Amino acid sequence: MLRRTFLQQTSIAAAALALPQAVRAFAPGTKSKVRLGFIATGFRGQTHIEEMLKRSDVEIIALADPDPRMISAALSLIEKAGWPKPAVYQNGPTDYLNLLARTDIDAVFVSSPWEWHLPHGIAAMKAGKIVGMEVGGALKLEDCWAYVKTSEQTKVPIMPLENVCYRRDVMAILNMVRQGLFGEVVHAQGGYEHDLRGVLFNDGNSAYNSGVEFGEKGYSEAAWRTNHYLNRNGELYPTHGLGPVATMLKLNRGNRLVRLSSFSSKARGLHDYIVKHPKGGPTHPNAKIEFKQGDVVTTHLQCANGETIILTHDTSLQRPYNLGFRVQGTNGIWQDFGWGDPEQGHIYFESAMKHSHRWDNTQKWLEQYDHPLWKKNAAAAESSGHGGMDYFVDNAFIECIKQNQPFPLDVYDLASWYAITPLSEKSIANNGAPQEIPDFTKGAWKTKPDIFALDANY
Amino acid sequence: MLRRTFLQQTSIAAAALALPQAVRAFAPGTKSKVRLGFIATGFRGQTHIEEMLKRSDVEIIALADPDPRMISAALSLIEKAGWPKPAVYQNGPTDYLNLLARTDIDAVFVSSPWEWHLPHGIAAMKAGKIVGMEVGGALKLEDCWAYVKTSEQTKVPIMPLENVCYRRDVMAILNMVRQGLFGEVVHAQGGYEHDLRGVLFNDGNSAYNSGVEFGEKGYSEAAWRTNHYLNRNGELYPTHGLGPVATMLKLNRGNRLVRLSSFSSKARGLHDYIVKHPKGGPTHPNAKIEFKQGDVVTTHLQCANGETIILTHDTSLQRPYNLGFRVQGTNGIWQDFGWGDPEQGHIYFESAMKHSHRWDNTQKWLEQYDHPLWKKNAAAAESSGHGGMDYFVDNAFIECIKQNQPFPLDVYDLASWYAITPLSEKSIANNGAPQEIPDFTKGAWKTKPDIFALDANY
Repeated sequence: MLRRTFLQQTSIAAAALALPQAVRAFAPGTKSKVRLGFIATGFRGQTHIEEMLKRSDVEIIALADPDPRMISAALSLIEKAGWPKPAVYQNGPTDYLNLLARTDIDAVFVSSPWEWHLPHGIAAMKAGKIVGMEVGGALKLEDCWAYVKTSEQTKVPIMPLENVCYRRDVMAILNMVRQGLFGEVVHAQGGYEHDLRGVLFNDGNSAYNSGVEFGEKGYSEAAWRTNHYLNRNGELYPTHGLGPVATMLKLNRGNRLVRLSSFSSKARGLHDYIVKHPKGGPTHPNAKIEFKQGDVVTTHLQCANGETIILTHDTSLQRPYNLGFRVQGTNGIWQDFGWGDPEQGHIYFESAMKHSHRWDNTQKWLEQYDHPLWKKNAAAAESSGHGGMDYFVDNAFIECIKQNQPFPLDVYDLASWYAITPLSEKSIANNGAPQEIPDFTKGAWKTKPDIFALDANY
Repeated sequence: MLRRTFLQQTSIAAAALALPQAVRAFAPGTKSKVRLGFIATGFRGQTHIEEMLKRSDVEIIALADPDPRMISAALSLIEKAGWPKPAVYQNGPTDYLNLLARTDIDAVFVSSPWEWHLPHGIAAMKAGKIVGMEVGGALKLEDCWAYVKTSEQTKVPIMPLENVCYRRDVMAILNMVRQGLFGEVVHAQGGYEHDLRGVLFNDGNSAYNSGVEFGEKGYSEAAWRTNHYLNRNGELYPTHGLGPVATMLKLNRGNRLVRLSSFSSKARGLHDYIVKHPKGGPTHPNAKIEFKQGDVVTTHLQCANGETIILTHDTSLQRPYNLGFRVQGTNGIWQDFGWGDPEQGHIYFESAMKHSHRWDNTQKWLEQYDHPLWKKNAAAAESSGHGGMDYFVDNAFIECIKQNQPFPLDVYDLASWYAITPLSEKSIANNGAPQEIPDFTKGAWKTKPDIFALDANY
């Protein structure tokens, strides 16, 4: 584990000395506050601000975002909560470097467009600021190595803020996997199957379902995300589907991803949306655009311990939301088909179900095996974003910093998850040719212990 | 289309002259009987015999099977129905050649172990006997070409008897695809997800769930199917998952399969079954065997028109039966999770469901769009095997012969479906390397018209 030597220069350094990775006992608790900066305060950054405004153990020191609308919205949240007004860095796209130059910030949330993750993350680590990195995929494979090398060189940790790892049903299934209900797990699936058409296009003013513009004429995600669909074809957003099964399969902690192959369907959904939209139509200029991103991109993954995973990226067609999780072992199988509500899944354990060969509804199983973390903190999470998941992922980030503990999801997870994107693009560009996934841990995966959500603490 | 010149030598030749493929109008009806032989009269062959025994337009002339138990069971069915006793060829594994040498047989059902499909099918066509071929996968890619070349040279047609193409929900979805409810289809899934452990092992006397023996000590499928799991690793049984989506995607009729890549999970299920079985245990000799076939084999397929398909072979783990169909287009998505009962699926059409983003249950949709074939013939199919599917596939086989019409599923379908198996094995052996799927139609797929189940006739 990275030694958090940077802490020696910060307000909480005195209270918590870095512990070696193998030590799971908490360092002595501290009442110190974590002093935070926010790089990018768009809608996602604002949800992290809202999470932090519920806490008494953080301070919001500074915000950076070149879009005055987003800064203004963030400041308004902070003001409404009665917190001191933070410093603001909104003077163009590189003013965040001035935020990072401050000496009164311990950690930053990075919630920027995907193409900014690398410069923001690297600069933050180089400035000695711990990073909570919103999820996405890398633009290039080298970017993944850059995260690893920078974190190793600077000794500054970075945590990928994959909230779906903390979804209540996902954590109950993880709990069941750990208790052996599934036997030996051999196969898993997940994905991002979410109709984003109304996010990828808007009218430039209102973020959702308001038009067919994107890029310079778009607002919020339509201003940047859609360009990836225009110019790329791959598993653009792997972590919501992969993160949860990564914890179950102990990826980078006794197991690792070895290779992938990706296939892409044709691209029809975005064109179809533009043509059918009341503000679009067949003569709208955007109706002429050919989007490169296939509507359904599926990625096969092979793990070192012999398991397989299928990821699906499916965001440009009409469909109900469904991350499509499946976990299958010698003794059990789980298949979800909804947005995480407890009754939205199928489950089967032949011994418990007396060889009925009939799916059971998940609800009672998920309740019985509710993860200790959820059991203890459900009330605290209740008002938080994305069904409470955001509470847990942000809480883990803050608690690990306060307690000087290794992050449950670390730079090796970030690198190997982000690597799916450029490797899937290369595979698709080469007719599905398999791509080797680097071992970013350089062999350490063989002995690194499992530390994700082992108890009720974070 | 093959001209059925062989008919000139048969009893029904006078009534029905061969028509070119483009002609869809039926040839004049005939009351002639189709004279049948059965090669392999195991449990699957017996279900075809039972189907035939319900009909007044066929005769059962001869049976061939080297296993006297299976011959005896088949004869008993025929006797109980009050039909004349057929000739029997049970003198070793090549006595079927004497059945094929008869001049009073129009067509044969081949229901043999996979490794016998090729010799049985080729010999039958060379003997001028129309072939109804039970489904499976080829042992080698060359086998697929052998079917095509032999059929083209002999002008004798062969139909793959893929019954799941006729499942009621599948046909209703096909009906909906054809009526445009799904818009442009871009992605599909299917598979064979069926816990076969109790079929792959038995006690050598009772076929199901009776022990942990196989091969020479096994009975029925355990005597031969399990050896494929011992020595091979691939998509061993592609057609139940592929056939239904093939008709929806018009494969070989305006579209075709271009390439595939397959990944395999580790193999744990069969060993686990042997160890846990009361007649097995960790010291049983079969507990030492390493099965090569991965528990979950997934295959990506790319189509010429840009669609993708995922097939799953998942037969050695505990699980409820589920062929896992998914059909996804610009206007709709269907996902099944059961064994074909109408309420066992999720479906979504955003326009009809007012952009609710909520799955609807399939039942009312499947009933509303019930395929004409099922609407007309549900009563006739009621008592037939596999929920009525067997009635339709066998009826299509017989009606096409009687009416001298091209089979709705033909030798090119058989070859391209069977090819999945050896190509998936090669892909897995090469770490998922993509494999090109030959165009067995030699370009004819571009213009061949769709003919599968266009009306209520067959």
